[in-house]
Parts: sequence; C-alpha cells; structure tokens
Amino acid sequence: METIKIDLGKRSYDICVGSGLIAKEDLFFNYICNKNIAIITNETVGPLYLDKLKKSFCGAKSIIDIVLNDGEGYKNQSSLDTIYEALLKNKFGRDAILIALGGGVVGDITGYAAATYMRGIDFIQVPTTLLSQVDSSVGGKTGINHTLGKNMIGAFYQPKLVVIDVDCLATLPDTELSAGLAEVIKYGLIRDPIFFEWLEQNINNLLIKESDALIEAIIRSCKNKASVVSEDEFESTNGIRATLNLGHTFGHAIETAIGYGNWLHGQAVAAGMIMASYMSMQMGLINDNDYDRIKKIIKSAGLPINPPDINQELFIDLMASDKKNKDGKISLILLRSLGEAFQTEEYDMKLLEKTIKTKIF
Amino acid sequence: METIKIDLGKRSYDICVGSGLIAKEDLFFNYICNKNIAIITNETVGPLYLDKLKKSFCGAKSIIDIVLNDGEGYKNQSSLDTIYEALLKNKFGRDAILIALGGGVVGDITGYAAATYMRGIDFIQVPTTLLSQVDSSVGGKTGINHTLGKNMIGAFYQPKLVVIDVDCLATLPDTELSAGLAEVIKYGLIRDPIFFEWLEQNINNLLIKESDALIEAIIRSCKNKASVVSEDEFESTNGIRATLNLGHTFGHAIETAIGYGNWLHGQAVAAGMIMASYMSMQMGLINDNDYDRIKKIIKSAGLPINPPDINQELFIDLMASDKKNKDGKISLILLRSLGEAFQTEEYDMKLLEKTIKTKIF
Repeated sequence: METIKIDLGKRSYDICVGSGLIAKEDLFFNYICNKNIAIITNETVGPLYLDKLKKSFCGAKSIIDIVLNDGEGYKNQSSLDTIYEALLKNKFGRDAILIALGGGVVGDITGYAAATYMRGIDFIQVPTTLLSQVDSSVGGKTGINHTLGKNMIGAFYQPKLVVIDVDCLATLPDTELSAGLAEVIKYGLIRDPIFFEWLEQNINNLLIKESDALIEAIIRSCKNKASVVSEDEFESTNGIRATLNLGHTFGHAIETAIGYGNWLHGQAVAAGMIMASYMSMQMGLINDNDYDRIKKIIKSAGLPINPPDINQELFIDLMASDKKNKDGKISLILLRSLGEAFQTEEYDMKLLEKTIKTKIF
Repeated sequence: METIKIDLGKRSYDICVGSGLIAKEDLFFNYICNKNIAIITNETVGPLYLDKLKKSFCGAKSIIDIVLNDGEGYKNQSSLDTIYEALLKNKFGRDAILIALGGGVVGDITGYAAATYMRGIDFIQVPTTLLSQVDSSVGGKTGINHTLGKNMIGAFYQPKLVVIDVDCLATLPDTELSAGLAEVIKYGLIRDPIFFEWLEQNINNLLIKESDALIEAIIRSCKNKASVVSEDEFESTNGIRATLNLGHTFGHAIETAIGYGNWLHGQAVAAGMIMASYMSMQMGLINDNDYDRIKKIIKSAGLPINPPDINQELFIDLMASDKKNKDGKISLILLRSLGEAFQTEEYDMKLLEKTIKTKIF
C-alpha cells in the first residue's frame, strides 16, 4: 500500500492506494470507532462491495446504508434529499461520518451532503471507478448538477481519508475504464511529460487491467493532483488548479448539450482535450507531432476524439456558462507544450468556432 | 461609524456600525466595482430599502434583485432554488456578489446560496433587524431549515463585509425589536457581566429606539460575537462558540414544536434562556438574586419568560435532535455565574424534565 498526503494544513488527509484495501479493518478503525456511519452507494456498486466494506467497520456504533440510483442523471437535489432524510430520521449528529462507496457521482453527492449536513460533518471517499480514483475523490470538489448546468451547486470540502482499492476495478466496464484513462492522460498533458511517455508505453497494460500498471497510473495521477490541490485548494482566479480543467469546458458543453449520462464524463473530456490541443496546435503552441501523439493515445485508450454533432451556437453558449469564466469571456485551458497547460481568454474567437466545427478524422 | 474586525486570517472581514450607512456609496465601492450583483431581500424589507441600497451600487456592472416571501417558513429549499435559478438564468459567474438585505432568514439563505453557488462566491450582509444585526449576520453560520429540523442544512461561510445601519430599525415592529434584545441580553449573560448591568440600566432607552443606546448595544454585541467567532470559527466540540447557543436548545425545540414562525426566534430563545437559568439556579450555579435579575430584564424587554404548552416527551425528543449533541446525550449551555456560560451533558435528567414542566410565574 502506498500513502499519498494531501497537504492542506488542518484539512490535510491521506490517500491510500493498493490492493484489497476495502477489507482492511485497521485502515478505517481510527476514523469510524464508536461513530454512527452512513455508507452511500448506488444500486450497481452496492451489491458488489457493500457487505465487504461493512465488515471493515465493526468498531462502529451503528451503520446504515443509503443506496442511490446509478448514473449522472441522479447527481441531483432529489438524491441529496434522500441522504438528508435518512440522516435526520436516524438522528445522526455532527459526530456521524459518511462513506462514499462508488464512482464520481456518489463521491460528489456524498461529499456535498457531508459539507452541508449540520454545517459540515466528516466523510471518507472509497472510489470504485478509475475516474473517481484518479480525479474526483481527491481535492474536495463536491456538488450536484442543476438542470441549468453541471456542478453548479457545490462546495469545496475535503474528505478525512481516501481509500483507493484497485481490486474494485475488476468489475468496471471497459468504457468506464477508458473514461478514467482520459483523466489519467490529462495529468501527463498538463504537467507531467514523463508520465505521458510512460502512458504511451503502458496504455495496453492499463486496458487489460494489469494490476501493477493500474497502481502506478493511479499513484502518479494522485500525486499530480495532490500537488496541484495543495497549491491552490479553492481554484483561485488564474490559479494552477484551473489547469486540471483541460478539456472540461468543451466537455461540459458536450455533456449538457446531449444530456448528462449519454456520454460518460471521461469521454466528453477526451473529445474536449483534443479540441483544446487542436487550438493549441493552430496557435503554434504545440507542434503537429505532439498533436498526433495526443490524438493517438486518446484513441488507443478507447476514447472518442470527435465531439458529437452539436449546433455551434449552442456549443459556444454552453461554454459561456462555465464556472471559470469571468467578465463574460470564455476562459480556456490550452497547452503551452506537451506537459504544460495554462488558462487564457486570449484567443481568436474564429479559431474556437472552427475548432467546434472541425472533425478531427 | 465604528468598524469591528472579525479576525479569521484569509477570511477576515469588517463589521461597520452606524447611522445612514446603506446610502454610503464609498463603503461598498471596492466590493462591488464592475461586478454582477444580486440583492436578495423579502417583500417586507424590499419596498423600504431596496431603492436606497441600489443607489449605493452605481459602480456595479449589473444589478438584479430577488424578492423572497417574508418569514421563517420560507427559509427553505424552495427559496434557495429561486436564488440559484435567477443567478443561472442571468449567467452570473464566480465573480458575482450577493447582497443580503433583510433579517436573519434573508441573511442565512443568502449566505448559504453564496456558499454553494459554483462552490462559493462572495456575499455582503446588510442586516435590517436587531436580531440579525447583533447575531446572525456575523460569524458565518448560513443555512436553511429542513422539515425535520431547523438549520439542519447549511455551511460555515463568512461574508466579505457586514454593514449595520441602525436607521433600518426605525421601521422594525416592537415585537421584533424585543426578539433582537434576547440575543443582546445573551451576550451579557454568557460573557459580559458589565454589559448586562448596562442593559439593566438602558433597557427602556433601547425599547424606545434611542439611537445612541442602540448603537452601543449593537457594537458591544458584535464585539462579543467577533471575539467568540475568532476563537472558534467552526463551533468545535466543547469549544467556546457553543456558548452562544444559551437558550437555543430549548428555543429550537419550542420553534419546531409549535411550527416555525409562530413564535419569533428571539422569543423562543428568551424562554429558553430562562429555562437554562432556572436549571443553573437549581444546580446551585447561580443564586436566586441573579435568577430574578435575568427574569426581570427579559420580561422588561417585552419577551416571554414561559414556553408555550408543549408535551414534555415531545419537547425532550426535539431537544435530542440538536446539532450540539453527541453520543445521543442532550448537551446544554448553562450559567456558571451571571456572565459566564459553559456547555455540559452532566445534569440530572429529572431536573430537565422538571424545568420543562415548570411555569416560571
């Protein structure tokens, strides 16, 4: 087991990465001893891992589980209400602790419930998808979607612990594995060119779920994320954290335009990263060869490189509602080189329009 | 104008107290210059002060106002949704700023909307009732009620500025003035015996809204609150901030039992403070004379000293759902002396039952 520390002063916490971790009672004991616990999961993950995880909580005072519907469409106020009601009906107090067992949706909702129940209680992330293991479970972004925009309601709220058990990936469908790889590749693109090269060499091992390769990719991704989050916890204006959103402004527009859940988040981000890379190439920031390498790895990870058909005006309108924007300008994360990203509002609007229309292949 | 500083590191802010402040353009300018602004108010306060306040925001980029229904019953998810929708439809970004113009309900909802819109945007409190001026607008407690409990959903989230204009009290109904005085008296009881004596001498001046007396009472209250909050921002277990809840565990039970809004919050807290004082006297912590002084000042402030008729079992059950509780025990704030409060779970349950049954007069 490897432990990565997120250094945030009083809000610091450990990310534990390894095999068989959800069955490791001693890993959880100090956090759950004599506490009321609510495990929040969904109908897909629950039957697979809930019983196993519960066995690791035998020092708890009481355990309830809250099983949500599965899917991005349920990352909403109604699921949140389900959690609040269960906690209130069971008279859970401020000393209760929530456990998120599932992917990004479960993690984001659970974190937000923890952030807002009685003005904040503790929670632990036990992410079970590659995407949540390398991205959403780490760094304290929590929230739900609003019908008028993705992740519009939320809070920065850090977990007390993140437990990443790679064994959970055994049951992960291939499309979701690929979706997770989009965020893994992102770290290479924005700040870790050596990791990018490692990924080029190891992408096939990752796709066949070779355990050591997965552990290495997760650790490297979490270390990159830990470093960025420690430097810029609250995603300050022009801060480094915004670079984690490479491909996301395009990606969110795709997800909103075609309805949450029709494309996986990672798929939308993959197409978005290609679009950002295309713009970077057209602006002379990266060369043709780098651009081809990016396209190639994303394609070989089983990810889409073209966005779905979306009306150009709608696409830009949706991008305009991104949270990073200021003064009404669409803020983009672009690549200065393969391995370095930056945030900018300085680009030719015509190029953005062209990028949205262009089919890469 | 007097300025009181809340010292919370990066989250520090000023509380400005004085006369005619909502018309002081320069007070707001640095906060609102070139920003999108949403003023949140209610149907009672809006017609009185909204136009005046808007005139102070002429440096803003745009101003919208969101007028909520008036009353504790509207401190709910539905009002919050009204705010989110207005912000999203107007494409307000993270650089927008919310202004709470109203009493505690408007302040708490606005603060919570600011805490959770796009994971947190700036907000300013412009409290217009005595209660919100001396209590709820300062210290960063934000939130809404849940049908299963008051203030159960919320966040600690500090404003950027608090502007307290005593002139707004001119239009405040007498019962609401009295309700505010309950929280003013509280500061004397829990940590400022000299202020308590001042209140005994000046209660009539406060009741006739004598301006200097009001300003003095507000400044003294805010200084006490600022000191407590700076020491214990997040109401830690057994921390000093919990003492601000003197009378509140009883009070919340009263409010929930008879329905929010049937008694004003300050009235419920007043009856609750008498109950806590009665227990403190019965436990030999304060003497009969102190107890009589407490009853006397609360009565002369126009506040109830007896709770309404509530079934004893229900009363205790409601107290058991208080957020301060741990390990299922009802935690109480009691008086060690007139001017010093403490939190405890060590008391005779029979005495609590007797206190709930006892009619003081």
